[in-house]
Amino acid sequence: MHDEGAAEPATTLDATLGFCSYSFDGEGKAEAALPVTDAIRQPYGIVHGGAYASLAESLCSRATYEAVGPENLALGQANDTSFLRPCSEGTVRAHATARHRGRTSWVWDVEMRDDEGRLLALTRMTIAVRPMPEQAG
Amino acid sequence: MHDEGAAEPATTLDATLGFCSYSFDGEGKAEAALPVTDAIRQPYGIVHGGAYASLAESLCSRATYEAVGPENLALGQANDTSFLRPCSEGTVRAHATARHRGRTSWVWDVEMRDDEGRLLALTRMTIAVRPMPEQAG
Amino acid sequence: MHDEGAAEPATTLDATLGFCSYSFDGEGKAEAALPVTDAIRQPYGIVHGGAYASLAESLCSRATYEAVGPENLALGQANDTSFLRPCSEGTVRAHATARHRGRTSWVWDVEMRDDEGRLLALTRMTIAVRPMPEQAG
Amino acid sequence: MHDEGAAEPATTLDATLGFCSYSFDGEGKAEAALPVTDAIRQPYGIVHGGAYASLAESLCSRATYEAVGPENLALGQANDTSFLRPCSEGTVRAHATARHRGRTSWVWDVEMRDDEGRLLALTRMTIAVRPMPEQAG
Repeated sequence: MHDEGAAEPATTLDATLGFCSYSFDGEGKAEAALPVTDAIRQPYGIVHGGAYASLAESLCSRATYEAVGPENLALGQANDTSFLRPCSEGTVRAHATARHRGRTSWVWDVEMRDDEGRLLALTRMTIAVRPMPEQAG
Repeated sequence: MHDEGAAEPATTLDATLGFCSYSFDGEGKAEAALPVTDAIRQPYGIVHGGAYASLAESLCSRATYEAVGPENLALGQANDTSFLRPCSEGTVRAHATARHRGRTSWVWDVEMRDDEGRLLALTRMTIAVRPMPEQAG
Repeated sequence: MHDEGAAEPATTLDATLGFCSYSFDGEGKAEAALPVTDAIRQPYGIVHGGAYASLAESLCSRATYEAVGPENLALGQANDTSFLRPCSEGTVRAHATARHRGRTSWVWDVEMRDDEGRLLALTRMTIAVRPMPEQAG
Repeated sequence: MHDEGAAEPATTLDATLGFCSYSFDGEGKAEAALPVTDAIRQPYGIVHGGAYASLAESLCSRATYEAVGPENLALGQANDTSFLRPCSEGTVRAHATARHRGRTSWVWDVEMRDDEGRLLALTRMTIAVRPMPEQAG
């Protein structure tokens, strides 16, 4: 999330996993990608379910924050991910659609697909929107 | 997952994130931990939601496989994680309880707590159990 | 579900709630409707969340069974419903899209809308597909 | 929900389905029951998945409202129900435990069991807590 006031840590989960190619239309469509590397595989060599959940959550949190911040925080509240098909190589591409953009919560549906466009996983992501607490200068 | 037949990759999501202290009683209780480092933080400095989802999924997948393998595979089917409280340091400890141990699926409830025992996140994890496909020698 | 072999009970949840206008294209699109009556309201006069969950589940179970039966059963495995907007009158219309049609499970996304087309609720429905047990004649 | 100010409709989903035996300790434990009748069965004669979802939602909404009302509303936000075992007779008993009682949301885990105490279904229920809007006299 782009928070000018906060010091960006040296690294984050997004950097660790390789989250890339983020874009957001400012309204209800956002995209990001995650290249398949050993860092996101489980021992059988396929992408770990947690990598899909992480990708969807980073994407939706960041896009929501860009729309509602900096006067509001965007906080992950629930992440429901279903795994449909294993993937072992290439790039996982996430396409998120905001299904609800309320004053106190946003709800997103995220599709994640492989290089052939096959559906790998689905996430329903609920983001709580809350007023940013006052911060000392 | 302990699959003697498969070559363990040089690294995995579990190794990347720092999954540790795994234990399983062979029946319905399993535990694991994840120390809070920059590798699992999001830009605000708190633990990324995807880290909780990943921890719960690794724990439940591994424990299910230990119970049903090697003649069966244990495949993540759905991961529903709710985030209750932010955490920025210490160790996240996951306690999983198998709520259903069926022939074709296991369902786990996972509680994740901080060093003071406060509840941080809850996961309902559904693991599909399927016969291991034949493999060439 | 259309099971020729089973005696249809005098009434069912679907009949009780008023499930109607079912259609299914035989592949991946199905629809149904639920008129808003007191039978599906909660005390504040708006549609009860359980009515949306019931509508989505009836629709997806029935459509899946029509595709995989009678040699297989279609059994609800998980129903994740998010409530986006209250509704107090008119008809709730559900549009379901099969996102995964596997040998052992189907996954559906269901949108429920009011008479003005506004999104009221979303369901992710997972249906387990299992071989029909043998039945005595 | 016990709202003294609102006229109770002649009937509701709870009355339609037969929701009974409600109790709440005022803090984090609540219970209710649903006798198995044709009104909650699906065509195979087993309890419809939507009946479990409805039971859990009524129970958690009502208990949350008793704790946070009348100055606040308790609104169902998400209902994630997993179905573990079919049930065709007796009474379904729901035991709910509040896992999070926040200022803006409550999260409950609900277990539903049959007369032999076997686990039939699990619900994670998220209830949004919002200030009651002003009402004209």
